[in-house]
Amino acid sequence: MDNFNFYSPTEFVFGKDRESACGEYVKKYGGSKVLIHYGGGSAERSGLLGRVRESLSRSGLSFTELGGVQPNPHDSLVYKGIEICRNEGVDFILAVGGGSVIDSSKAIAAGVLYDGDFWDFYSGKHVEKALPLGVILTIAAAGSEGSGDSVITKEDGMLKRGTGSDALRSRFSILNPELTQTLPAYQTACGATDIMAHVFERYFTNTKEVEITDRLCEAVLVTMVRETPRVIADPDNYEARANIMWAGMVAHNGIVGVGRSQDWNSHAIEHELSALYDCAHGAGLAVIMPSWMEYVYKHDVMRFCQMAVRVFGCQMNFEDPETTALEGIHRFRSFLHRIGMPVNFTELGAKEEDIPQLVEKLGLGSGKSQGFVPLSSEDAAAIYKIAAKAKI
Amino acid sequence: MDNFNFYSPTEFVFGKDRESACGEYVKKYGGSKVLIHYGGGSAERSGLLGRVRESLSRSGLSFTELGGVQPNPHDSLVYKGIEICRNEGVDFILAVGGGSVIDSSKAIAAGVLYDGDFWDFYSGKHVEKALPLGVILTIAAAGSEGSGDSVITKEDGMLKRGTGSDALRSRFSILNPELTQTLPAYQTACGATDIMAHVFERYFTNTKEVEITDRLCEAVLVTMVRETPRVIADPDNYEARANIMWAGMVAHNGIVGVGRSQDWNSHAIEHELSALYDCAHGAGLAVIMPSWMEYVYKHDVMRFCQMAVRVFGCQMNFEDPETTALEGIHRFRSFLHRIGMPVNFTELGAKEEDIPQLVEKLGLGSGKSQGFVPLSSEDAAAIYKIAAKAKI
Repeated sequence: MDNFNFYSPTEFVFGKDRESACGEYVKKYGGSKVLIHYGGGSAERSGLLGRVRESLSRSGLSFTELGGVQPNPHDSLVYKGIEICRNEGVDFILAVGGGSVIDSSKAIAAGVLYDGDFWDFYSGKHVEKALPLGVILTIAAAGSEGSGDSVITKEDGMLKRGTGSDALRSRFSILNPELTQTLPAYQTACGATDIMAHVFERYFTNTKEVEITDRLCEAVLVTMVRETPRVIADPDNYEARANIMWAGMVAHNGIVGVGRSQDWNSHAIEHELSALYDCAHGAGLAVIMPSWMEYVYKHDVMRFCQMAVRVFGCQMNFEDPETTALEGIHRFRSFLHRIGMPVNFTELGAKEEDIPQLVEKLGLGSGKSQGFVPLSSEDAAAIYKIAAKAKI
Repeated sequence: MDNFNFYSPTEFVFGKDRESACGEYVKKYGGSKVLIHYGGGSAERSGLLGRVRESLSRSGLSFTELGGVQPNPHDSLVYKGIEICRNEGVDFILAVGGGSVIDSSKAIAAGVLYDGDFWDFYSGKHVEKALPLGVILTIAAAGSEGSGDSVITKEDGMLKRGTGSDALRSRFSILNPELTQTLPAYQTACGATDIMAHVFERYFTNTKEVEITDRLCEAVLVTMVRETPRVIADPDNYEARANIMWAGMVAHNGIVGVGRSQDWNSHAIEHELSALYDCAHGAGLAVIMPSWMEYVYKHDVMRFCQMAVRVFGCQMNFEDPETTALEGIHRFRSFLHRIGMPVNFTELGAKEEDIPQLVEKLGLGSGKSQGFVPLSSEDAAAIYKIAAKAKI
C-alpha cells in the first residue's frame, strides 16, 4: 500500500426532509450572507428553493441567488458568480443541485478570494483558499458533494478541465434521496454510470495487495449493480435511491482509492465527448469505459477476472482466465444497456469522423498519459474507435 | 435507510515513517504546548518516543509527558493528566499508543476544559468541548484513532464505561503499519478480533435494505479474514499489516454503520469480563461474540446466512438455511481459534461461577438492553454460559 493522506471533513446530513434545516448548518459553519447557486427551473418548481429560502430566513441569514448552471458548467457563469459575491459581500455559497452546480459553486468559492483569473486553478494552479461552501444534493452522480474536485468548461474552445483541493470540500452536504425521486430514468442512469466509473478509475491499479480498498470498491460496485435497475423500474423506491445516493458519495470522497495508483484516462477521454457534443457525462462514460476496458484488459487479465467474479458474479474459468475477463466487460456493457445507457457513438450522438479532433483536444500530443495503462494519442484514437462501433 | 449524520473530520496520515512529521501536524492543528501521553516502556525502547520528541522540537513546540497507560485505562491516570495539563498550560494532547492511550487522552482532553469531575462524561453527560488531540497509532484494534469514542475504567468498583462525542475526534491520526510489526501475535490477534467485532456490531441490524453499508461491512470483514492469518504467520508482512491497520479505522469511524440500527451488546457483555479479569478486550470478544451469535441467530437466520456466505465463503443451503447460519458462526469461532484467540472461559482465564457477578455489573437489572435482539439479565447470563463452555 502506498503512503497516503485521507481527509474528508464534510459533515454529511442524510435522509428525508433534511434540507429544511439547511439554515442551521450554514450558521453552524459560519455563513451570514449566502449565495444560493442552482441550475434550471426544476428546483423552483419542485418547491425545493422555497424550502431553502425559508430555512435560511428562519435562521436569520440573508441571501442572494444565481441560477442557470448548465450541465458541463461554463466559465461565464462562474465569472458572474464571483462578481455577485464580491459586490454583495457573500461569505458562504450554498449549492442546490447536482455535480454541475456544486462544481460551479466551488469555482466561484475559489475565485472570490483570488486576485487573478479563476481559470488559473483549472490550468494547474493549486487552490489554497476558498469561501466556505454547503451542498444540497439533487442527483446521485458526480460525488462532488464529498470531494475536493471541480470540473469547468471554458467556452472559448470548449475546454473541459478540472482542479482539486481540500479547500474546495464542502463544510456540509445534505443528501435527501427523496429529491432524486423525480429524476427522469435517463439522468438517473447517467448518474449511476458516473458513480461506477469513479470506482473503476480507482479499482484498476498497479499497486499490489490493497485488499481493503479493493473490497471497498467492490462493495460500492455490487451495490450499484443491484440498486440501479430497481430505481429504473421504480423511480419512487426510496431505499434503492438512498443506497445509490450514499454509494455516490463513498465512490468519490477518496475512501475507496487511498494507498493505490489510479487510472483516470476514461474520465479524460470522456470529457472530450461531453465538451464537444454537450452530452451527459455519464452517457459518455457508458460508451467509453467498457471500450477502454476492452483495449487495456490484457495488461492485467487477473484484475479483470476479479472484477468479473466479484462484481458481476461470473464463474471463474480457471483454464482460460481471459474468457472470464472478457465476460466481465461484456456484462458491464450489458448492464449499462439495460439501464438505458448508450453503448456506441451513434446512440450517444457522437461521430466517428470527429475522432481526430477529440484526440487533438485531449492534448496528449506525442506524450503519454499516466495510469494503470499509460495511453498515447494513438491509444486514445483506438479506444474512441472501439467506442464508435461497440455493440451488445 | 434511517436518517443519519456522518462526520469524520480527522486527517489520516498513513504509511511508512509518517510519525517523523508529527510536529508539523500538531502545529497545523494549532498546538504549541503538547502533552505526550503513552503507555509502557516499548514506545521508549523502540525509539518511537525519541522520534516524536525530535519532530516536536524541530517544529519549535514544547512538550511534557505522561506515560503509564494500562490496557483498560484507569481513571486515576486521567485525573493526573488533567492536573498536568492545567498546571503546565498544555493546549494539545498527542496520544502515542493504541486504543487505551487514545481513550485516556480523550478523557484528559475533555476533563481539562470541564469544571466538574470528568467521570460525569462516562456517566451520561455529553462532551461539548475538549482540547485538540492528535494520534500516533501503534496497534490496529480499537479504532479510537478515527472515532469520537472513549472507554475508561473507574478503579472504585472496576466500572468500565464509555462516552462519545464529535469533540473527541482527533485532528490528525498518524497510522504507520511498521509500528505494528513488533507486536506479539497474541496482541495482533486481539486487535483483529476487536476490529471484526466493531463491524459485526453494526452488521447485525433490524434495518432493511441497507445494501451499501452491508457491503462495506463485508468488505472490512473479508479483508480481516484474509489478512489476519498472514500477519500471524509473518509478523513483518507490511502489506497485510497495512490492510489491517486501515481496516481498523474504517471499521470504527462510523462509515460502515450509518443509516441502520446497531447492536453493541457483545461489547457491553465483554466489557464486564475485561473489567473483572483485566484480560485483553479482543480476547474477551473472541469468547463472547460467537456465543452471542449462537444465542440470537434465530432472530434473523437469513442475516446470519448472509454473513456465512459473503464473509466466510459458505455455500448456501437453500433447503435448510439454519445449517448455513450455524456453519458461518462455526467458521468464525474456528477462525478466532486459528489466530490464537481463546474460545471459552477457561482459555480466557474467566470463571463460570462469576457469571452472577458479571451479570449484576452489566447493570440491566430487570430491564432490557437495546439492539438487534434486546437482552435481559437472563439472556446475558445464558450468553456467558455458552461462552464458558464453548468448544471448537
